[in-house]
Amino acid sequence: MIYRDLTTSLRTIMTPGPVEAEPRVLRAMATPILGQFDPEFTDIMNETMDMIRKLFQTENQWAFPIDGTSRSGIEAVLCSIVEPGDKVLIPIYGRFGHLLVEIVERYGGEVVTIETTWGEVFEPSKVIEEIKRVKPKIVGIVHGETSTGQMQPLKEIGEYCREMDVLFVVDAVASIGGVDVKVDEWKIDACIGGTQKCLSVPSGMAPITFNTRVEKILLERKKIERGLVDSDSIDRVQNRMIRSNYFDLSQLMDYWGPTRLNHHTEATSMLYALREGLRIVLEEGLEERFKRHKLHEKALTEGILSMGLDIYGDIHTKIPVVTPISIPEGIDGESVRAMLLNEFDIEIASSFGPLKGKIWRIGTMGYSCRKKNILHVLGALEAVLIRHGVNINIGQAVQAALGVYEDASK
Amino acid sequence: MIYRDLTTSLRTIMTPGPVEAEPRVLRAMATPILGQFDPEFTDIMNETMDMIRKLFQTENQWAFPIDGTSRSGIEAVLCSIVEPGDKVLIPIYGRFGHLLVEIVERYGGEVVTIETTWGEVFEPSKVIEEIKRVKPKIVGIVHGETSTGQMQPLKEIGEYCREMDVLFVVDAVASIGGVDVKVDEWKIDACIGGTQKCLSVPSGMAPITFNTRVEKILLERKKIERGLVDSDSIDRVQNRMIRSNYFDLSQLMDYWGPTRLNHHTEATSMLYALREGLRIVLEEGLEERFKRHKLHEKALTEGILSMGLDIYGDIHTKIPVVTPISIPEGIDGESVRAMLLNEFDIEIASSFGPLKGKIWRIGTMGYSCRKKNILHVLGALEAVLIRHGVNINIGQAVQAALGVYEDASK
Repeated sequence: MIYRDLTTSLRTIMTPGPVEAEPRVLRAMATPILGQFDPEFTDIMNETMDMIRKLFQTENQWAFPIDGTSRSGIEAVLCSIVEPGDKVLIPIYGRFGHLLVEIVERYGGEVVTIETTWGEVFEPSKVIEEIKRVKPKIVGIVHGETSTGQMQPLKEIGEYCREMDVLFVVDAVASIGGVDVKVDEWKIDACIGGTQKCLSVPSGMAPITFNTRVEKILLERKKIERGLVDSDSIDRVQNRMIRSNYFDLSQLMDYWGPTRLNHHTEATSMLYALREGLRIVLEEGLEERFKRHKLHEKALTEGILSMGLDIYGDIHTKIPVVTPISIPEGIDGESVRAMLLNEFDIEIASSFGPLKGKIWRIGTMGYSCRKKNILHVLGALEAVLIRHGVNINIGQAVQAALGVYEDASK
Repeated sequence: MIYRDLTTSLRTIMTPGPVEAEPRVLRAMATPILGQFDPEFTDIMNETMDMIRKLFQTENQWAFPIDGTSRSGIEAVLCSIVEPGDKVLIPIYGRFGHLLVEIVERYGGEVVTIETTWGEVFEPSKVIEEIKRVKPKIVGIVHGETSTGQMQPLKEIGEYCREMDVLFVVDAVASIGGVDVKVDEWKIDACIGGTQKCLSVPSGMAPITFNTRVEKILLERKKIERGLVDSDSIDRVQNRMIRSNYFDLSQLMDYWGPTRLNHHTEATSMLYALREGLRIVLEEGLEERFKRHKLHEKALTEGILSMGLDIYGDIHTKIPVVTPISIPEGIDGESVRAMLLNEFDIEIASSFGPLKGKIWRIGTMGYSCRKKNILHVLGALEAVLIRHGVNINIGQAVQAALGVYEDASK
């Protein structure tokens, strides 16, 4: 059997990731390969590191991608830092907090969790209180929870962690490139971003950054692994060793740093893609980019509200790049999603766990976050809801969004 | 600072990977993104699985890529199979055997190694003897050692392992798509391939396959992790749990299988690339493809020998896709490589460890393995060696290669 040419529909992707990739990024991937130690390629590696620093608003030396999808970045950071028995506090306010727990537990960390209602975030003072009580070595938290559309304020927590010498690890997979992630100002020790969301680069790389506080632990764990062969300390060696070879940040530092020690073979085309995606972000400018995301969020949410639908969760702590919508009583949310996909070539998302069947989620991320898509999704959603017999305000949604755009251009 | 447009030289890449990517593969990556649960995308996932099965010459149900570079596939297989205390026999005949050791040790396996001189492989009977003595749970071995250009015969070892109920894990990163890798016939229980070598797909994915003997272990380790919460068995739970979340094959089975449980976000563009690369392999046909690799190897080696240079290592067990050349006495191998790159835009490789400075390695893999490249590299190498004052037979190399091609077309 011979397979046909790759032929895909051109979808309007309005999920919280993966979203439509920037056309310039797609083209960059078609660039021919360079060898990984070709000086032209190591220049590209260095340029990409520099742009990742700017993306994370950090002066950290260490800022590079992990060659894998977003959760590979999370695992690389956690497995390189967390040692068996380390106490790790993880405040959970949605699905991806549970992922942090899952990873830390697998690597032998002693997890303590606090949870708040899905659709809300934590009062920073609540987390600080818990840090006081638990005295963890590490606090791990999600910045933007795509599962609920909420965004956790981090600055106060970060400052308190630094004061108490607690390591502060932040999963900014969903927020990076769409809203502010101020690694240095918020005293984040290690931060993980995602490519397939607000950067509009295909999934397959995870930019991370970490500071010298983290580097210190990595160097300790590395030294012990390579050196000390006296058998007395073998137990200690075994305990401190970073379990994963692929995710061993101490080895990756030697690969991305000036020593250029061979580790994996860098994913050439994905690095081209990430470089181009970052270049687009920096050309637009972080401030401008965040403003753009807020503008289209406003157009979308006013459209949704004008239709008579409800936004789910606390509106004050909503993340601008995901809009969760309560599914009207009695309506099959999956049927609406299927009709959007099959008739209009639009993909929106459902959610997980307790929110499954309760909300839709519309992403406004990166390249997908543009006027054409907002107007298209509002018009299509209205049409599909009418078709499903939902009693909505007809003809209002697109008008409301147009109004927002008109006001903004004045 | 604004970065310039991505601009790269068009190199002739004659290393043992990464090699030049197929132009059709590069174009496929420029295809717009689909969501990971879009039915069009899950179709592409299924097609790719099917083509991976054909590539590995297996009927295994489980055949899918890991989202990472080649060693991510090796780590995924090893960390999902190897439990702390498991005895693993690793015969080493080059650099990448040491990588298997490194990974198994990190996950708590008890490694026993045997080593043979670099430049040779093991007599299968030698390995079988060692299996008898050591009684390992797992034997892990490299099929094609790019570091030395050698290829280990596997069939007898595989058959003995099956007889003794030992798991046989093979790293076929360098050989897959360039020479026969008969997973079922050779009784390989788990096999890992690479994309950036004989498949001529950029680095960033690792196709793997495993059979029901491996699946059984995965399901046991999975069941225990999710189920049993009685505290008596916590130690046993902790011991059997797969450490990595990203590389947990039992979870990846649910992601690639019909249940389609969410795990990572599949690396869309890399999957497009892999699909196209596999399509090209199957269109050419495995037998035809292997024949092509042998033809160009012949042209290259006859050219090298006619020049008066020596092929390094045992010629009888040489892998057709890598040709190691002894660097003539007194010559700075790195200077020759630099001149090839800077003046001729050709990249060839050096080697590692004991072979550093002793050999060059020329890859003839996938799309890089074609007449134009063979003739170009022979002509350029001759010119550079003359420039370095090496006493070679002038004007012979390209003629010898042309002769091979002429004979083949008769």
